[in-house]
Amino acid sequence: MYPLLETINSPSDLKRLSPEELIQLSGEVRRFLLATVSQTGGHLASNLGAVELTLALHYCFNSPNDHFIWDVGHQAYTHKIITGRRDQFHTQRQYKGISGFPKRSESPHDAFGAGHSSTSISAGLGMAVAGDLLGSPSRVVAVIGDGSLTGGMAFEALNQAGHLNKNLVVVLNDNEMSISKNVGSFSSFVSRKLTGNYFRDLKKEMKGLLENIPAFGGNILKFARRAENSLKGFLTPGMLFEALGFEYIGPIQGHDLPQLIEILSNVKALEGPVLVHIMTTKGKGYPPAEQNPDQFHGVGPFDIATGKVSGGKATGPSYTGIFGQTMLKLAREDNKIVAITAAMPDGTGLSPFAKEFPDRFFDVGIAEQHALTFAAGLAAEGFKPVAAIYSTFTQRAYDQVFHDICLQKLPVTLALDRAGLVGDDGPTHHGAFDLSYLRHLPGITVMAPKDENELQHMLKTALYAGSPMAIRYPRGNGYGVPLDEELREVRIGKGEILSEGNDVAILAIGSTVYPALEAAAVLKEKGISATVVNARFVKPLDRDLILSVAKATRHLVTVEENALMGGFGTAVLELLADEGETDVRVKRIGIPDRFIEQGSQAQLRADLGLDGSGIAAACEEFLKSPAVKPLLTRVK
Amino acid sequence: MYPLLETINSPSDLKRLSPEELIQLSGEVRRFLLATVSQTGGHLASNLGAVELTLALHYCFNSPNDHFIWDVGHQAYTHKIITGRRDQFHTQRQYKGISGFPKRSESPHDAFGAGHSSTSISAGLGMAVAGDLLGSPSRVVAVIGDGSLTGGMAFEALNQAGHLNKNLVVVLNDNEMSISKNVGSFSSFVSRKLTGNYFRDLKKEMKGLLENIPAFGGNILKFARRAENSLKGFLTPGMLFEALGFEYIGPIQGHDLPQLIEILSNVKALEGPVLVHIMTTKGKGYPPAEQNPDQFHGVGPFDIATGKVSGGKATGPSYTGIFGQTMLKLAREDNKIVAITAAMPDGTGLSPFAKEFPDRFFDVGIAEQHALTFAAGLAAEGFKPVAAIYSTFTQRAYDQVFHDICLQKLPVTLALDRAGLVGDDGPTHHGAFDLSYLRHLPGITVMAPKDENELQHMLKTALYAGSPMAIRYPRGNGYGVPLDEELREVRIGKGEILSEGNDVAILAIGSTVYPALEAAAVLKEKGISATVVNARFVKPLDRDLILSVAKATRHLVTVEENALMGGFGTAVLELLADEGETDVRVKRIGIPDRFIEQGSQAQLRADLGLDGSGIAAACEEFLKSPAVKPLLTRVK
Repeated sequence: MYPLLETINSPSDLKRLSPEELIQLSGEVRRFLLATVSQTGGHLASNLGAVELTLALHYCFNSPNDHFIWDVGHQAYTHKIITGRRDQFHTQRQYKGISGFPKRSESPHDAFGAGHSSTSISAGLGMAVAGDLLGSPSRVVAVIGDGSLTGGMAFEALNQAGHLNKNLVVVLNDNEMSISKNVGSFSSFVSRKLTGNYFRDLKKEMKGLLENIPAFGGNILKFARRAENSLKGFLTPGMLFEALGFEYIGPIQGHDLPQLIEILSNVKALEGPVLVHIMTTKGKGYPPAEQNPDQFHGVGPFDIATGKVSGGKATGPSYTGIFGQTMLKLAREDNKIVAITAAMPDGTGLSPFAKEFPDRFFDVGIAEQHALTFAAGLAAEGFKPVAAIYSTFTQRAYDQVFHDICLQKLPVTLALDRAGLVGDDGPTHHGAFDLSYLRHLPGITVMAPKDENELQHMLKTALYAGSPMAIRYPRGNGYGVPLDEELREVRIGKGEILSEGNDVAILAIGSTVYPALEAAAVLKEKGISATVVNARFVKPLDRDLILSVAKATRHLVTVEENALMGGFGTAVLELLADEGETDVRVKRIGIPDRFIEQGSQAQLRADLGLDGSGIAAACEEFLKSPAVKPLLTRVK
Repeated sequence: MYPLLETINSPSDLKRLSPEELIQLSGEVRRFLLATVSQTGGHLASNLGAVELTLALHYCFNSPNDHFIWDVGHQAYTHKIITGRRDQFHTQRQYKGISGFPKRSESPHDAFGAGHSSTSISAGLGMAVAGDLLGSPSRVVAVIGDGSLTGGMAFEALNQAGHLNKNLVVVLNDNEMSISKNVGSFSSFVSRKLTGNYFRDLKKEMKGLLENIPAFGGNILKFARRAENSLKGFLTPGMLFEALGFEYIGPIQGHDLPQLIEILSNVKALEGPVLVHIMTTKGKGYPPAEQNPDQFHGVGPFDIATGKVSGGKATGPSYTGIFGQTMLKLAREDNKIVAITAAMPDGTGLSPFAKEFPDRFFDVGIAEQHALTFAAGLAAEGFKPVAAIYSTFTQRAYDQVFHDICLQKLPVTLALDRAGLVGDDGPTHHGAFDLSYLRHLPGITVMAPKDENELQHMLKTALYAGSPMAIRYPRGNGYGVPLDEELREVRIGKGEILSEGNDVAILAIGSTVYPALEAAAVLKEKGISATVVNARFVKPLDRDLILSVAKATRHLVTVEENALMGGFGTAVLELLADEGETDVRVKRIGIPDRFIEQGSQAQLRADLGLDGSGIAAACEEFLKSPAVKPLLTRVK
């Protein structure tokens, strides 16, 4: 079925192939990608676009001696398939399978891991400097998309790379879109094409300019302005990168394998920083993905013939969808509400908002730092900005939450989608830390809804609180609970008791509230009666409620889909200590102090004891264990 | 003494002055700045460079209706002086005085606060968009230095600003250096001067090019390369900003007030995003600062006549100095040790290292994100990178610590200088959160030395641990303790008992260890015997040690110069809870859940009870308080 591909077990096997065979191989790789990803789901469009580029890179360079760094990693499937992972590829993004992203621990060919954007040039520059210090002949190639180039740290790295002048190849994989359409002026500039008209116009402008050059006795500055005005329309991306100290090669058609190989072979011989600008087509070779690359960016299992995505089991509308609907509802009644996303209008559910309120919607590109300070600027002028960014990507703007939002008490709402365990994307994408990294910032309110209905109310609450607010909610579907028509404000810092018991109180937050209720039902059958609290707020905590259930049961179990260190359960411990409560036992359930691998959300939650039966078992064991273990036996 | 300045109580008073009077005023402002800052200390050189620029801006625009946003805020003194804060200016950076940075709560003229770099364009764009939505005629002006432009988020903001095409003025205050000399290719490019030769060469190149333009039947791409090669040497910063969608004006001499006023008046009438490029001289008008702008960037009190900085009370060498010395010592014996700073070679003590090992030293510019991923790249190749960045600025690279360092288990050492309370720089600069934002990241070791001698040993420990490490140490001088000649590795996760007692155990970390010893001495006189523990590690905790002193005293007091939420004391609470210890009372001392204002370190520590007497008083009160307050009286 894949006669050539089946002979490729390492990049060295590529080098035996003729140009014609390489072209045949690219076709086989595409078929293989389609066959696998249509079963497993994954990032399809970006990978289809990078087939020839990847084959050409591996043909010309020698991995792992030469290092490839794939920015974000959305385009590294071909790389994985031809570096010894063809036979495991059907396990990608599956529980205990190979990762959908480059991963150092997985293969020596994965020189640097990724998942978040815009890191490749920095890492590549570090490696290039290391190679220089070691006198190593290894080459380093960073492959970065035009979308990732909008992230500020890519620019920071380009800036230093041009200055240091080490051997570093940056391949700009330009498909004129990142996850959604690129938005900045830079990306449209980068993608500006050279045409015949371009040179006709250039010639005309230059002639006029030259005819008027004075004998330099005149006003140099005035002339300079005119010269600039004439020239600036003729800037090319090449000039820009050259100005930053890079040798520029391109633009090059990215699906012409022989040409790519010819050019990359020459590039390999160049010294210093080189930028190779390659034009590719997302979804290349699979018409449904070419026509609809957004939908096939990250996709679930689908039917190859029709391009139709297989339906999942929808228990209710997604949190993302409810967030987007609620934004619309609220924005229709309040024109001070504005929405901000960092290249994720679909992923965050804001596309309908963007359509209805194009003037109040801002996609800033892959630029989370700018997104939040931009939001702070809007808030300073009386607007109610909501920045919807995934929990894991908001990590990149931690300092902006501190410096621009909290310190100035500006009413920005952070909508942290994909908080907790996200599933197949694995450790780079789990939103495992937001409660821990936000809670200690003075003046912020941090909350999490138990279901999609509460999300609506919390969003309204956040928008009218007049202070920094964060709402975290999980990836995936809600419970299909009835959605209140009228939105109401939740009382800040107040939780609710959902069921009352005497033996133990389960304090749950966000996605763990329903599992806690399940646990209480399981415990009831075993004769254990549990109070279940929907805490709602991690900051401020509902002091009175927590102290009252602590007093009633003397046994608290906290449950959260967040790191155990510094999260919700920890906040409860702080409260008890500050109140001088010593005779309350607390068991904390959450994400332990290690990185959590990929797998379905259900699987991962079960593994970590975050589902109903896990919580019940933990409660049972907790109540059985001796109140205080004798210290002397443990401490020598 | 300041006849004109004394009449300026708001920007509107400026507008009555003639051009000659404005020039006279600029001289008075300089004298006033020198007279005050020589007494109080502060940021001198950057402020002297921005006098004319600030007067011209306030003359042409109408603050507070028009908004000025000062990036970082190192240049806003003149702005403060002429916006009603002249009489308080002698209190700047003093306890309960006015801030050395723009601050929204201080004046309506401070449109957006700062302290960290590269945020002004983002905030300004948010305000410009707000103004557009409101139909307001207000103008927004972001003033940013060339150094701050190396921070990635400034680029993210430029990128969106050019795209959105709102009315936004960016003033590039180009003094060809940020805190230290700029390092990137971009800043040298921005500062490229236009000369007569430039145009002579341009003319020659263009002529040659035009003579050879074929009839466009030839190979367009080949021609394009040649055209680019001819043109790229002639790029100007103007072209670059124009390519990003900005109207470019400049470069303009920044100390010629009448010219500045003429140009800025015209700028005010322009629509869309405008970048005004102004060349200024750091330290302008004060020869010692002009000649040595680094030394006069942030300076203590000094003698105006000689430029000599008054000596402070040096109790011992600074932590920064010891760090720098130890780096040198270790690097002489291990050529895999490399050092990275983000525009702070002096501030982090790395200048001697840079001088001795120029090939192993990297100043990446104001680019903390890139700094850490660059370090990760070096670590991936077997190097031992140490990234020395202030605690508060490392916040900007939180995601890189997670994604590039911890997740990949790469042995990067974070040297977090200025951890804890920093003093006069105030809330933007206190390193109040590092224990909280680092501790929850899996695989990192977090430690803090009790004195400068321990710092040496911890640095060696970090470099040979082979995993992600963080050392936090305070601003200022050590204790003058003897420095061991031979560096040794501290056992990871092991603290030490410094004095033994029966009534209470004080668990201290880093800068609070000596104060804890003082507290023990005070308590002893009152008949209370205290154990004092130097915890050394916040992660991993010394479990056995902490449990043993907990058992011995049943009363723990934790002390840290970090936020109480999620920090060291919290880690102790987690340990006790996880071990099932309920009959241990814990009192946590640290930074409460609010932003801490400026003041001397001693004053702030006293205020927060972090000095010896504060700790002693807290211990005394803690031991007196009832073991468990009756819950019923508190919870209704």
